[in-house]
Formats: sequence, structure tokens, C-alpha cells
Amino acid sequence: MQLGMIGLGRMGRNIVRRLLRDGHTCVAYDVDRKAVEALAAEGATGADSLDDFVAKLDAPRHAWVMVPAGEITGSTVRELAARLDPGDTIVDGGNTYYRDDIRRAAELAQKGIRYVDCGTSGGVFGLERGFCLMVGGPEDAVRELEPIFASLAPGVGAAERTPGREGEPAPEERGYLHCGPAGAGHFVKMVHNGIEYGMMAALAEGLNILHSADAGLRPRDSDAETAPLDHPEFYSYRLDVPAITEVWRRGSVVESWLLDLTAAALLESPQLDGFAGRVSDSGEGRWTAIAAIEEGVPADVLTAAVYARFSSRNEGEFANKVLSAMRKQFGGHAEKTA
Amino acid sequence: MQLGMIGLGRMGRNIVRRLLRDGHTCVAYDVDRKAVEALAAEGATGADSLDDFVAKLDAPRHAWVMVPAGEITGSTVRELAARLDPGDTIVDGGNTYYRDDIRRAAELAQKGIRYVDCGTSGGVFGLERGFCLMVGGPEDAVRELEPIFASLAPGVGAAERTPGREGEPAPEERGYLHCGPAGAGHFVKMVHNGIEYGMMAALAEGLNILHSADAGLRPRDSDAETAPLDHPEFYSYRLDVPAITEVWRRGSVVESWLLDLTAAALLESPQLDGFAGRVSDSGEGRWTAIAAIEEGVPADVLTAAVYARFSSRNEGEFANKVLSAMRKQFGGHAEKTA
Amino acid sequence: MQLGMIGLGRMGRNIVRRLLRDGHTCVAYDVDRKAVEALAAEGATGADSLDDFVAKLDAPRHAWVMVPAGEITGSTVRELAARLDPGDTIVDGGNTYYRDDIRRAAELAQKGIRYVDCGTSGGVFGLERGFCLMVGGPEDAVRELEPIFASLAPGVGAAERTPGREGEPAPEERGYLHCGPAGAGHFVKMVHNGIEYGMMAALAEGLNILHSADAGLRPRDSDAETAPLDHPEFYSYRLDVPAITEVWRRGSVVESWLLDLTAAALLESPQLDGFAGRVSDSGEGRWTAIAAIEEGVPADVLTAAVYARFSSRNEGEFANKVLSAMRKQFGGHAEKTA
Amino acid sequence: MQLGMIGLGRMGRNIVRRLLRDGHTCVAYDVDRKAVEALAAEGATGADSLDDFVAKLDAPRHAWVMVPAGEITGSTVRELAARLDPGDTIVDGGNTYYRDDIRRAAELAQKGIRYVDCGTSGGVFGLERGFCLMVGGPEDAVRELEPIFASLAPGVGAAERTPGREGEPAPEERGYLHCGPAGAGHFVKMVHNGIEYGMMAALAEGLNILHSADAGLRPRDSDAETAPLDHPEFYSYRLDVPAITEVWRRGSVVESWLLDLTAAALLESPQLDGFAGRVSDSGEGRWTAIAAIEEGVPADVLTAAVYARFSSRNEGEFANKVLSAMRKQFGGHAEKTA
Repeated sequence: MQLGMIGLGRMGRNIVRRLLRDGHTCVAYDVDRKAVEALAAEGATGADSLDDFVAKLDAPRHAWVMVPAGEITGSTVRELAARLDPGDTIVDGGNTYYRDDIRRAAELAQKGIRYVDCGTSGGVFGLERGFCLMVGGPEDAVRELEPIFASLAPGVGAAERTPGREGEPAPEERGYLHCGPAGAGHFVKMVHNGIEYGMMAALAEGLNILHSADAGLRPRDSDAETAPLDHPEFYSYRLDVPAITEVWRRGSVVESWLLDLTAAALLESPQLDGFAGRVSDSGEGRWTAIAAIEEGVPADVLTAAVYARFSSRNEGEFANKVLSAMRKQFGGHAEKTA
Repeated sequence: MQLGMIGLGRMGRNIVRRLLRDGHTCVAYDVDRKAVEALAAEGATGADSLDDFVAKLDAPRHAWVMVPAGEITGSTVRELAARLDPGDTIVDGGNTYYRDDIRRAAELAQKGIRYVDCGTSGGVFGLERGFCLMVGGPEDAVRELEPIFASLAPGVGAAERTPGREGEPAPEERGYLHCGPAGAGHFVKMVHNGIEYGMMAALAEGLNILHSADAGLRPRDSDAETAPLDHPEFYSYRLDVPAITEVWRRGSVVESWLLDLTAAALLESPQLDGFAGRVSDSGEGRWTAIAAIEEGVPADVLTAAVYARFSSRNEGEFANKVLSAMRKQFGGHAEKTA
Repeated sequence: MQLGMIGLGRMGRNIVRRLLRDGHTCVAYDVDRKAVEALAAEGATGADSLDDFVAKLDAPRHAWVMVPAGEITGSTVRELAARLDPGDTIVDGGNTYYRDDIRRAAELAQKGIRYVDCGTSGGVFGLERGFCLMVGGPEDAVRELEPIFASLAPGVGAAERTPGREGEPAPEERGYLHCGPAGAGHFVKMVHNGIEYGMMAALAEGLNILHSADAGLRPRDSDAETAPLDHPEFYSYRLDVPAITEVWRRGSVVESWLLDLTAAALLESPQLDGFAGRVSDSGEGRWTAIAAIEEGVPADVLTAAVYARFSSRNEGEFANKVLSAMRKQFGGHAEKTA
Repeated sequence: MQLGMIGLGRMGRNIVRRLLRDGHTCVAYDVDRKAVEALAAEGATGADSLDDFVAKLDAPRHAWVMVPAGEITGSTVRELAARLDPGDTIVDGGNTYYRDDIRRAAELAQKGIRYVDCGTSGGVFGLERGFCLMVGGPEDAVRELEPIFASLAPGVGAAERTPGREGEPAPEERGYLHCGPAGAGHFVKMVHNGIEYGMMAALAEGLNILHSADAGLRPRDSDAETAPLDHPEFYSYRLDVPAITEVWRRGSVVESWLLDLTAAALLESPQLDGFAGRVSDSGEGRWTAIAAIEEGVPADVLTAAVYARFSSRNEGEFANKVLSAMRKQFGGHAEKTA
């Protein structure tokens, strides 16, 4: 079928390519003309303005918006919707906050435009591996888009079938799922990313413990400001962390794609030179923690993973100064320098 | 080559089977005579006493101890060692605390017996998938055992090779790794399990957030003792958690073996009937947290995962009573009943 | 000066009493007629309807709203405002979410009504100890109310002056502070309560560790499902927790009002009989955690304290079932019963 | 009565002074001759060697060891014990790990020497405020030392009596408590310090949230690497943090000595200039967390407080690099610079 794509960055570009490969036709638009030309050379129909984009789509139109930051998504959807007709469908494939989806879907519904939110996982590997799609929105619009989702998703062959699943594979086995009404797709994607934060932190913390397994061999101050190491003999291993991540990739309980990527990164640079350890976060981890808090369910691990990123960027600095200041007050302890 | 196995439970039994399949010979012993007979029927040489076991092994002997709990491992190793000769090797394949390995290896070294600690991951699936082996101990003993390790491990074909790895696969690519001197294997396995706890908790917390995405639809008290839900409309999803775990298995960033297992469990029982949610822990998670604390590195996520298991078993009860008692003292709040 | 009070529950009642004691005049209203009569008997002017309440106040009116739950505060403020004139002032002394203050203040400003948000700490002891007041709103309205705030606050004599503070005591030394524009008072009160959650949890967790210092004396399973206790001899203390909280009250670093209350509760009942350990939370802890997340600063301790309350009410149940289900999948572990 | 003191640093010196004030006689020894002379000038009997120290004590001797780091305490106790007779008593008043107490007490008991472990809280303020004493050891030795403990402790007048306590004040009301056998004093002191870490962190995190309440006013990147701030208008407060800590000192629920100290520190320097925020830890926090883990009780807050100190010293660096490396692998995200 035909799909229009607005936003030809890393993700949007690869979605178009995967659709073209599978025989769909695509109208592609981006403010960056070169991005449009590049995809046109690969078989897409290029559009040189939003008007042109809309004109080149067959009614009822299906337009996928794939732009990075939240604010731009909002304005792009608005400008696009102003040019669409009742019965047309907008898919937001970015990392939109699901609350914005709920609001937007209601607004667009008043004009008869259908809004589908599609959480899209797969990163830069999606072109080859396929994308995992978590979809929210009205039943009919989602059904119409199924050929697109089926082409983008990895397909049932990408993993062994779960024991007990037989016969015709369900959509979720192919790699896409209609999760519920407006926002449900991005809600599920949000929690997916929250879990991702937690799994990443679990691996990172564990590797740091391995990395510091030589603590007993390192010189250590012995003063009232330094916690003693009671048994240095228990911490006298110099471990090969890259090899350890590799060995875990086969047969262990922590087998995971994140582990595969970690092993690859550590093979490139065992000490991870070139990284300072200032870890960004892009919203979904925060929103997941907020959802847990508002629902009233504990999420210690996921939230700790978010806070660890804040701490990595030194956002706890004032709190830490308060702690040192208290210690000086009650114990006369001067702060140790590095 | 020939290997002796003491302990024919779930793990020991499958290790023997996998070795037999690959052409090794095995002498098998267990206090449970039926377990011995069953394996003898599959091609192992059964032993009916520890003396018999030792007698049936060719010198230099290689004996693998695979018994469940820590205390029994210690006494089994002691009794076995009393019957061995200099140059023989004991492999401890259980979940021994690496500190016990360090002590034991030193004791046995005085008698000329070599001690190899082998962290073994793979669970009940190891027979088919192969086991991931993390090995500590003296270089020569580990080298002699390589044919065994190579047969037990999944082999390089079990996963795509990490980009940049070429030529003859390294041992870690086959699924086993000599991590360092005595205790290093169990140290790495300990941290592996710590990571496993963290990844499990990340998944579990995330699924709980999805499970409670209908919080806004549930009836809710409105009193000074109940936190208000400001925007119930944001929590009005009834999500299909089993289907969500299935869709994530293909193409998502959280692809992992633990996710596969979770999807399988939720397919069997979407509400996980039959579980009360009292989660056991078997030591490695605790030891990993203690290692982080003693090394002086943060491990918020791994430790929170351990504590969540304690809380699931209501070990925080007295603390919780203290909180309710304080609230009553300063605010006159009576504790709400369930 | 004259103050009107709507809401004569625990807090509102005591505020009126403390004002009467200090020579102010009060008009008191509550839907519960008996509460009005009781305070009238103590010297307040009773009002039998909202109209009557407004009629009995001298212009420009100063009306304090002190009703428990968030929703009722909103409707009470609305109904009251409908009866007020430009230049009148409403004080919201409850635990309102500061975001509601910002919205309300803007709405009321359009009618010329001034809105003051006043976070009020002190609980049931406020009548005797005085209340700690954190105030937000327009400068002029706050200044007019200073005689009220000064009477309600404990006064500078309630604590030793901070070294370096001299001369005429600042308002914050008397126990009230104008923190900033609309919402600032409740924002500061919110974080105050967040800290309170954290301090309570610190005490509660510590006492639980003391309470379990006899872990090595308790019978313990020895199986693959139970983490071993390596050194039971280190956990063989039977400690007198009530006496310990008492000894800390004098000269220790953890001296605090919360400790005083804990010592009192434990003296009443050393095992805290009558509490089940289901700890309520009333919003401020959650909001504090959300503020930290949105600001992007780490708040591990405060958030853990909030989650511990959720866990105490078994809100982690589904997550815990997921964990047990995974353990069964990969290790064949059946869940242990209590 | 007579007490010998070894170690005349901040703590030891003030203990001697407080005893002299109360009419006790003290023999004082330190490797620093000047410290001895200074105290001699205040009325103590100076000793110029360990032999001289022991010679000047009347049998049965009571010698208090107050030296900073753990290792030195051990050797000092050993050298002292070598010079003592059966029936003499050694008090260890430092921050010794209670496990060392258990071992030491058993060793000394074989020589007939009694060992008392005394956790001592009060810091640099102890001379004026009195010290809070948590005591472990044999009943008879502790009873003999009561006049000393009673003089050092703040006395019942230092706080209001807990409601329900009447008549002759119990020792714990005076400020000292015999907690149990060897190690019990330091065990209780250890947990006290663990709680202290948690309370400090609660305050520090809360103040950081207040400090960042202007997040919505700060310039902010808008890109795929920066989490958006959905409602900047909710974070537009510039709060006076020093004044807020002051107002909480009277009438609020978070009244505490740590708050008093924080207010003092912020009055000296509102931005806490001179502190870099590298927070030391001196062992007790770690040991408390380890005790929780080994007992199997959750201590999320206390442990998070310990880890936050590690993070403040950048001990999470390798973990953070792993996170950035993963993000680059799966999303092509380059790490943002500060």
C-alpha cells in the first residue's frame, strides 16, 4: 500500500527503505531537501513541500510522522492535519508522551482525522532486524495499516515461537501489536524504554563490580575519612570484562540484545575510551517512573536507573555539598580532595 | 575424556548427559541410588559409594561436585579430597560463595589437589542450549579440563559473532572462560546472577506498571489517607500483558532470554495464578550487593532488586509498623485496613 | 486581627484555638454544626452557612480554608470566592498540590481576590508547639496576614538560635516564611513532607535491622531456595529496640522529633501491636518524587521511601509473581510457601 | 572514679575534659606529647608511655581507647592488653566493626581482661551536649563503669521525657545504654550511623529539589538527547534555601539536630562554597547495609544513601561509560558534552 513519511532522519529513512523493499510505495518529505533526494533515488516519491506531500498521497491518505523532538512532532502534526481530509490517518511513530497522543487524537477526531500512535523500537538496526511496533488508536485505522506494520516488523521467524503458540502467528508474534486506544502504543513503548533503562543499568552496575574486583590491590588511604576494606584478599582479581560479556552471550541467563551490544562496544574499546560517562536520558525513563508513582506501584529499579543517569551528569551536586557541609558541622570533617 | 560427577540433581544429571552425547565417559555418583541407576541406563558408569566413585576414576582424576546447598558442597569436597591423590582435580560447579573457594583451594593445594571453581549458568535448559561456564583456578588444571568445558558450552554457533571477532573462535565465544585464579569463576557467576536479579526486576516492575495502567478506572477512596490520582484519564488502559511480552521478543531493545521465559509463563497463565509472589533469593544477589558495597561502587539497581525480594516475603514488616506508628503519633492517622 | 476559618477538623480547630489564645477574633464554619458549636463555646464566632460566614467577616476579609482532601478544597475555595469581593484574601492551609494553587491563584486574581497558599506542619501537636508555616502568594496579602502567622508559629524561643543569627529575629526564625509567589508555600511544604518520608524510612529501616539482629538465632531452612547465612554468630543479639530509641534522644546525631515520637510509640507497645504495617501515603511524597524527576535531579532516598509504602500495601504483587514465574521457568524453582 | 584514656584527638580529649569537670580523675596518654601536656594542664595526669600509663592506673584498671582508624585500634588494644592484669577493663570507644569486638572480647577474656565496646555519638559537640553512649560487654564491667557513662552522657534533662516514663530515669533516659554482650554497643552505633546517613540524604535530596525549583527558568536544549520539561511553568521558583531550613527548625515534622546543623552551614555560605561535593564515608553506613543484606531485611533508603556517596566520588564512572556506549550502539547516540 502507499504510505507518506514526514521526517527522514535515522529512523524515518530506514522505515521507508524497509517498506520499499517489501513492495510498498512511499511519498517522502523532509525539510532537508538532500534527505528527500537520497530516498527518491532509492525508489520513493519525493515531495518538496507539505502541500506537495499531501497532494501526492492517494485518499484516504496515510501519513507517518517521524521527527525527533516532542515539540516539533506537535507542530508537524498540526500543520499536516490542516491539509488533510476526513478519513485520512496520521501515524506518530516518534517517542511522543502518550498524554499528548490522548489530547491530539481527541482534537483530530473532531475533524474526522484518525490518529495512530506507534511506539517504534529497533534503533539503527531496524532496517535489517525489523522494527518492534506498539500501536494505539482506533480499530479501523489500525486495521487498514496492518500491511505496513507487517512489513516493518521482524516477522515470526525472528525468534523461536513461544512454547504453546501454534498455528497462524498472531500479530504480536510477527512483531506488532494493537495495544489499545489513543496513547496505548506510546504508553507501552514508554514502559518498554523504562525496562530498557533498568536492564542497561543492571548490566552496567554488574560490569562496574567486575571492573573493581581489584579493589584490594589498589593503594588505599587509611584515615578516619576512608572506609576500611576489611578483606582486601577478596578483591584481588583483574578480570577481562570484554571476554566476560562475550562468554555470557551463549547459554547464560542474561542473554540479551543489550548484552550483545555491550560486548561489541567493549571489543572496540575495552576501557570505553572516548566516553566520559555523562549519560543522557530522553524522557521515557522519567515518564515511566512518574507512571509508577501515579499508579501507586513500586518501581525501585527503573527509577534508580533514571536517577543514576542524573547523577552521572552531576545533577546531585548541591545535595552532595549539603552532605559534606553537615559532616563538617557535626564531626569537623574537612572534605577530602580527589 | 573421563569425568566423575557427584550430585545427580537437575544440573548434575544434565551435565553428564551432555558429556555422554559428546563422547566423553562419566562416572556418576549420588546418595540417591535411583538417580545413579537412571544415568547408568543412559551410558554412565554408576558408583555406589564415594570409595567406589574414586576407584572407578582413572588417575589423574577429574571429579565434578554438583550439589545444591553451600554446606553440603563443603563437606562433599572434604570427603572427596580425603580419597584423592596429588595431581587430581576437583571441580565445584555449584553456586559456592567465591570466598569459600579461595579458602578451599588453598587447603587442597597443600595436599597437591587442584581445585577449579566453575560458575554454571543455563538452568534446566542447559542440556539442550548448553551451559555458560565461568571458570576459576590454576591454569594447568583448567587447560586439562577444556574438552569437558567445550562439550558443555553452547558453542560459537549459538549466537551471531560479535562484529570484529574473526578467525578461530576464542573460548569465550564458545561459551566458557577461564576468568582467573581460585574463586574468579564463582565471582563472575555471582555478578552474573546479580545482573540477572536486576534484569528480572526491570521486567517485573515494567509489567506491573502495564498491569496497573487501568488505575484510573478502579474505584478509589477519597480521604486524607489516600493519595489522590490527579488525572485518572491517563490511566484508563486495559492492556494485554502477555501479548506485550510477546511483541517485544522481536526487534525491540529489551530482547532477552528472560523476556522469552516471561512470555512463556504469561501464555500459560495470564494472571500468573498459582504464584503468591513470595520471591526466594539464593545468595548470589546478596553477595553481589555486598561486593559492590565493599568495593565502594554504587549498585542501586542490583541492590534494589535484592531488597524487593525481601519485601515480597514481608521482611520489611517491622519497619512498616514503625512507619504507621509514627504517622499515628504525629498526625493521629489510624492505619487503613486493606 | 480577624480571621475566618472554614473546616474545623483536627488542624483547623487547633489553628482557631491558638489564634483565640493570642487575642485574635475568629469566625468559624464547618458543615458539621457540632464542631462549630464547640469552637463557639471557646470564644469563636460561629457561622451556620457559607453566606453567614462571609457576612460575619469584616472587609477586607481574610478566610482560611482548612479541609482535608484535595477535591473538597477546590470546591470550597470556588464557593467561597463566589461570595467574596475584590481585595479579600483566601488562605489555603491544606495539603494542596502546588500546581492547583498556581491555577487557582490566576483565576482568583482575575476577580481581584488574593490567594495565599500556606503549607502547615505540626500535626496534632501544633496547638501546643505552634505550627511551622510555609507561605506562597502576593507580597501585600502575605504582609497583611503576618499577625496571624506570627501567632500560629512557635516563635523564636522554640529552638536555639542558629550561630551567626543575631538581633531582631527574622520571620523564618519565628516559624513562618514567605517562600515566593503562588504555589511556593505548598511546593516547600511538599518537599518538607518528602524529606519527612525519607527520614521516617531511615529510622524505620534501621530499627528493623536492630529488630532482626537475632537472625542467627532463628531456625533457618537449608535448601537451594534459601540464601545461606554465612556467619550466624554475627547475628545473635536480642536488642531492646524501645530502649535504643530512647538512648538516641539525648546527644546522638539522629536526635529528631520523629525519633521522639518513635520512642513514645515503642514505649506504648514494644512490638507495635495493633499495626499491620500497611502504610498510607497522602500525595506529597509522590509529588516530591515527581518534582525531582521533572527537574532532573536524583532523589533515590526520597523515592525509595515512597515505593516502600506502596510495597507495604502489596502493590508490587504482580511484579513479584512475575519474578517467581521466571524463576520457575529457568530453574524449575517452585515458589516457597511462607 | 579513675579512667585512663589513650588517644587524645577530638573525641578522646573532650571525653577527658567532660570527666574532669564532673570530678573524675583521668590518666591521659597519646603518641603526641603536646596533646598530653595540654590535657595535663587542664587537670589530667599525663603519661609519657604506655608503660607509664598502665603504671599510673589503680587496679583494677579501666582504660578507654579512643583512636581513629580501625587498624590502629586493634594494635593499641593488643599492646595495652599485654600490660594489663586479670580483672582490668578495656573500653573501645571508637567506631570499631562489631565483628572485631566479638573476636577481641573472646581473646581478652582468656586472659581475664574484660572488654567493653562503646559506640560514642556526639561529634565535636559532645563536650557541651554530652555523648550518647551505646555499650556492649560483660554485665559486671559495664556496671563498674556506670559513673563514667553517667558523667559523659547528656543526662535526662537534655530532652523532654517520653510520655509514660516516670520516676527514677532509666539509664537510656540519661543517655547511655548497655545494649548486650560483646559487640552489641558497636552494632547499635553502626545502625545509628546508618540511620544518620539516611536522614542526611533525605535532607540533602530535598534541598536539592528546592535548589532546582527554577529548572523551568533555565535555558534548556531541545534535542533527541535531552529529556523535555513538559511544564516549565511549574518550575519557576527561586527559593531561599537557607531561610527554608531555618523555618523548618521550629514546629515542623523534620525538626532534627541534622537540620540545625544544615541551617548553620547554609547561613555561613548559602551556596556551600568551599565544598566540591565529594562525600566521604567511614564504614558504618556500609556495614549497616551489609547487616541488612545478611539479615535479609530491606534497607533501600539506607543503602541508597551509601551509594549516593560512592556516586558523589565518581565511583560509578565505568558503569556510566557502559551506558553511554550502549546508547551509541543501539541508537547511534553520541555522548553529550557538559
